[in-house]
Amino acid sequence: MGKDYTKGSFTLPGEAGYEELTLELAEKWGADVIRDSDGTQLSEQILASDYDIYSTLCLIRADNEWAKANMDKLQQCFLMSYPVVAESDTVTIDLLRGYNKDQFLVNCNDDPKEFWQVFNRTTGEEVPLSDWTLDPEKGTVTVKNTFKWHRYTVNFLVYRIWEEISAYNHVTNDWGDREHLMPIEPMYPETQARILEILEQWLIDHPHTKVVRFTSLFYNFFWLWSDDPKQRFIVNDWGSYEFSVNAYAIREFEKVKGYRLTSEDFVNKGLYNNSYLPPAKKYRDWMEFINNFVVDFGKKCVELVHKHGKKAYVFYNDHWVGMEPTLERWKEFNFDGIIDGIFNGFEARKVAETPHVDVREIRLHPYFFPTGVNGAPSFLPEGNPTLECKTYWMDIRRALLRKCVDRIGFGGYLSLVANHPDFIEYVAELAQEFRRIKELHQIDQPNTSSFKVAFLTAWGNMRAWGCRGHFNRGNFYNEAMESISGLPVEIEFISFDDILANGIPDHIQVIINAGRLDDAWSGGWYWKNPKVIEIITEWVSQGGGLIGIGEPSAAKHSSQYFQLSHLFGVEREIGLTVAWEKYPYEKTEKHFITADLSEQVDLGKVIDGIYVLEPETNVLAEQDGCPVITEYQFKQGRVIYFAGHQFKPDNIRLLHRAIFYAAGKEEEFADWLSSNINVECAYFAKANQLVVINNSFEVQTATITTPNKKEIKVELEPNASVFIDL
Amino acid sequence: MGKDYTKGSFTLPGEAGYEELTLELAEKWGADVIRDSDGTQLSEQILASDYDIYSTLCLIRADNEWAKANMDKLQQCFLMSYPVVAESDTVTIDLLRGYNKDQFLVNCNDDPKEFWQVFNRTTGEEVPLSDWTLDPEKGTVTVKNTFKWHRYTVNFLVYRIWEEISAYNHVTNDWGDREHLMPIEPMYPETQARILEILEQWLIDHPHTKVVRFTSLFYNFFWLWSDDPKQRFIVNDWGSYEFSVNAYAIREFEKVKGYRLTSEDFVNKGLYNNSYLPPAKKYRDWMEFINNFVVDFGKKCVELVHKHGKKAYVFYNDHWVGMEPTLERWKEFNFDGIIDGIFNGFEARKVAETPHVDVREIRLHPYFFPTGVNGAPSFLPEGNPTLECKTYWMDIRRALLRKCVDRIGFGGYLSLVANHPDFIEYVAELAQEFRRIKELHQIDQPNTSSFKVAFLTAWGNMRAWGCRGHFNRGNFYNEAMESISGLPVEIEFISFDDILANGIPDHIQVIINAGRLDDAWSGGWYWKNPKVIEIITEWVSQGGGLIGIGEPSAAKHSSQYFQLSHLFGVEREIGLTVAWEKYPYEKTEKHFITADLSEQVDLGKVIDGIYVLEPETNVLAEQDGCPVITEYQFKQGRVIYFAGHQFKPDNIRLLHRAIFYAAGKEEEFADWLSSNINVECAYFAKANQLVVINNSFEVQTATITTPNKKEIKVELEPNASVFIDL
Repeated sequence: MGKDYTKGSFTLPGEAGYEELTLELAEKWGADVIRDSDGTQLSEQILASDYDIYSTLCLIRADNEWAKANMDKLQQCFLMSYPVVAESDTVTIDLLRGYNKDQFLVNCNDDPKEFWQVFNRTTGEEVPLSDWTLDPEKGTVTVKNTFKWHRYTVNFLVYRIWEEISAYNHVTNDWGDREHLMPIEPMYPETQARILEILEQWLIDHPHTKVVRFTSLFYNFFWLWSDDPKQRFIVNDWGSYEFSVNAYAIREFEKVKGYRLTSEDFVNKGLYNNSYLPPAKKYRDWMEFINNFVVDFGKKCVELVHKHGKKAYVFYNDHWVGMEPTLERWKEFNFDGIIDGIFNGFEARKVAETPHVDVREIRLHPYFFPTGVNGAPSFLPEGNPTLECKTYWMDIRRALLRKCVDRIGFGGYLSLVANHPDFIEYVAELAQEFRRIKELHQIDQPNTSSFKVAFLTAWGNMRAWGCRGHFNRGNFYNEAMESISGLPVEIEFISFDDILANGIPDHIQVIINAGRLDDAWSGGWYWKNPKVIEIITEWVSQGGGLIGIGEPSAAKHSSQYFQLSHLFGVEREIGLTVAWEKYPYEKTEKHFITADLSEQVDLGKVIDGIYVLEPETNVLAEQDGCPVITEYQFKQGRVIYFAGHQFKPDNIRLLHRAIFYAAGKEEEFADWLSSNINVECAYFAKANQLVVINNSFEVQTATITTPNKKEIKVELEPNASVFIDL
Repeated sequence: MGKDYTKGSFTLPGEAGYEELTLELAEKWGADVIRDSDGTQLSEQILASDYDIYSTLCLIRADNEWAKANMDKLQQCFLMSYPVVAESDTVTIDLLRGYNKDQFLVNCNDDPKEFWQVFNRTTGEEVPLSDWTLDPEKGTVTVKNTFKWHRYTVNFLVYRIWEEISAYNHVTNDWGDREHLMPIEPMYPETQARILEILEQWLIDHPHTKVVRFTSLFYNFFWLWSDDPKQRFIVNDWGSYEFSVNAYAIREFEKVKGYRLTSEDFVNKGLYNNSYLPPAKKYRDWMEFINNFVVDFGKKCVELVHKHGKKAYVFYNDHWVGMEPTLERWKEFNFDGIIDGIFNGFEARKVAETPHVDVREIRLHPYFFPTGVNGAPSFLPEGNPTLECKTYWMDIRRALLRKCVDRIGFGGYLSLVANHPDFIEYVAELAQEFRRIKELHQIDQPNTSSFKVAFLTAWGNMRAWGCRGHFNRGNFYNEAMESISGLPVEIEFISFDDILANGIPDHIQVIINAGRLDDAWSGGWYWKNPKVIEIITEWVSQGGGLIGIGEPSAAKHSSQYFQLSHLFGVEREIGLTVAWEKYPYEKTEKHFITADLSEQVDLGKVIDGIYVLEPETNVLAEQDGCPVITEYQFKQGRVIYFAGHQFKPDNIRLLHRAIFYAAGKEEEFADWLSSNINVECAYFAKANQLVVINNSFEVQTATITTPNKKEIKVELEPNASVFIDL
């Protein structure tokens, strides 16, 4: 080793009143940067230290006095009232029943008859404007000419009067009677002027700050809070633009796009435009409109930062809506860095592959708050922050072996870690491990597949390495994405619109479609487009490899449920063809894909009712008497079906093998393969160094096979990594 | 006891060449009737005995010479060719590929361009007539202007050249080169004339026959056979009218109904009109048309039998299509008796409740064939016919305790039982047990609920105590029906059309809706009709009890998945609202419905993703972390949801309790209740006799509580019954 990995690439959250601890831990963890967090300050002693200073700034909640004086300039959204069953020919609906009154205030200023809609949700029909009236005092809508026992809802506009991230931090840290900050809507010219003023003053007021850490820009992800103490949140969707809506924006949109969006375009039967739905054309237009605004105004803010000689980093979360780092206009922001707080490998890849920035930083967990955003009691007496941190890092580390980031860090109240010496020790180790991995990446790329694998979803690259936020366990797409985040394969994300416009790029050798009926991940209604069927069938017939997970290509359309059942060689019984005998099959006992399965296969919760269509469909594994892994050859192409997928070592290996099998690259698969599914490795050719990691909390031994068939035996402590010079 | 239950109400299959065995077993089992079976004859010795003689007759396969001479008068059906993927702008489809060539012959006589259709199943669109041509020699259709990689199918007419039941018996009993019998189509006037001639001659030729046992009338249930030795059958649907179609009938239908049906009205995307689909209006019209024909011509046949001084019984299976014993015109046949071969309780109820006949007979299993229709190796060396018979009888017996039939019997080759002495002994016991139960019913009805329970399905009374044939395990409706067949409750079957036309009858206190999305049992598209929602909601609000099983009221329509979610207080996550927090609940530990659950609940395969909508929804049981039994009060009505149901003692008891709870009759529930869920009983007031049965293969003890709270302790041998005088 020889080399020293004890310093650099580490961001420490400082805390006023704990100057000694701050500087001690900065030394211990090798920090080169000290940051503040929402709720913490840095004291003069810290600011004057030798460390670089990052300072957080959230522009849309930065001036609450102005917000209070301009309540009509607050951010808004559409809500759908909870359904109310009419018990006669009239029904009165309490608009905010069930919603958090600290978060929402009914907006009666923008003409309700212009912007609101009332629906009979039993029939799905809109109620005529003349049949409902608003009582602004009571916050109720009364509907007449109702049908007894039908359900009615109101789509209505609300001001958002408690900025959600601030509210979250407030509640989590018991901030008591501290003032509720309100989010201002930046689309109004007056608001923009005020924001730029705030920013300029802030820059002047923060001479020690080297990096302005925007947290983030303007629009938070969709997050509705409940008023029921038993159910804190109603919905939480990292990818949804529902918080960017208001009457002014709707009118501006109409000027640009030439048509008017209705409340129902946002409320969508109560589904809203959530990330699990394939985006409708109108919603795509809205996203583009918001993206244009966010870029146009956001880059003015960044320019101002640069003008003051500081750098601008942005948090890839919270108010990230409209930034869209994978889209074309992202580079116009001219951000210097991006930061995200992550738990998993796929999120690490999301940050690592963000283009057009110099610095990519991940904020590790646990956050130094009493409880984590995932509900873990991190720094409460019953918590175990060291174990938490190890668990997350084990998943993140395997992704970083494939594509690395530039920095790591933590956030929150540093004082909370003071009485956790084992945590302090472990973070020091972790930081050194990170610096070694980063150094290897600076020299070289690790071994990877000679071919590219593409996830095909309705979102494509727009939600590359993303789903709906942190890890959605049980979502086939997210589970598979997490598994692949640490595999030695080249990954892309393509959409149906991409392949409809340009076909399937030549360099793609394997396509993965993973999801459930009607969702954005499998593709939903795109599968009813015969062009999609033509393009993919042609491509498979020529030798493309296809992997389906869950309900790939599912749509209730014409005669088939899996619209690609002719490629998969399997179909799903959904309860309407029970009278049909299903083709009997014999399980194929030995196959490349299942060669490492030592026990009964367990893909977790699987799609049931799968049956084979063709005698040539090979069934590689069964669960509960149904095929769960199958393989079928269509012309030159290999097609593999998994009825489910769970991020765990045996499933990861199955997917790893399936990818290389689908690509027809079984020989390549053997290079740098670990004999033990709990152990993975990456080989960096220029450094001639092999990194081997133990993805378990037990001691593991493994044999790694090099391309020239040399065998390297390794023994690893629980959770450990080794760096081997070859 | 005193009384002798050794003789009567028993039908024995005789067999020529085994006269001694026939007469010995007739004595042993107390038979009063000897019958022949398909494939067996009765000798003069048997015919001349003192026993009544039943003789089977299947009119549509009775004269194969005539059939061969009139091949254009054979029965037909529409088939959909298996989908073929076009690989260019033309595709050739081998019509009968995959179908059994012994069963089908392509009908090129009735103009294909008038009756056939070709579909692009990728898009769902019909191919213009000008784009396809038939090659009658090759049995292929060539389609031009196809889209590469789309799937094409042909709907085409076939003659059925091997009558299916005869074919089944032929194959099962290895009849070798015995001639294949062909089914003739009775709708042609010439065929009718010939059938009446055959029947008249047959009646003259069978002087010993007392009862003509029609097996059955004209149209067999839908049963397609495969040409793949690994997959004998393709589809098998007892309730489907698909075998009643031909060009002549289509033209006759048009004359009566004023419109033409197309091949796709029968093929229906390859789903055909199978029993699991809510019947379309056109299909209902077709059923009515066929029912009218079957009644009109069938009653002529019965008249002829009566004219010859014999009785006419009919088999409630095989060629039963069009008879419809639950419909209005059934009584016009004037049948003297009905017979069905059954395995289960719900089938026993189907026979027991058939109106307008004097004699209701069940044929028990195992049938005296080497293998059973359920695949059991009954009389093969590895078979255990006694255990089989006990198993079926245990389920049938509990239904007969509620509603009895008049006779039991067996069928097949009697010689097969000769070397099974234990079977011979057991049947003698079973026959005595049956006679005792029958006698009690002749005096009185047993205790039953003071209120009526209705199953609500798309079929209603038309498929009372029926599903798609024998027990469809896993079908929530069939499982629940089987459980209820032995419970002391009054059952009706109502349809959505019934309640739309007449509302819910006053005497109904509980409605059960059990099924899956889009199927006939839950109701499918009927749930999109707001009138249905109004009627049921009104009824529940007034105190009606509703029980939903599986996916009750499910439809993809407007904002809800369960269209009655406002009554159930639960909804199902189908993968599009994953971003929503589900309302947290606490399990209700003590409840009337779950009071007898001693272990962890196991409803079998349940509908997943159930979540509660209201704080007032009581969760009574969970499986895999999801609610599986819930209870909610809507106004005056009690509403219970089960995520699944399996016919087994603990589930039967749950349903039993749920019914009385939904009806608000918890006190009545306690009358004649058995403390042991494996033991059931029926009390016959006039005889003042209590019958207690053990539904298990273990010894059981139970305490029965009488209405005046007297406790009766009983110990039962495995599978036994006791008759207690009170």
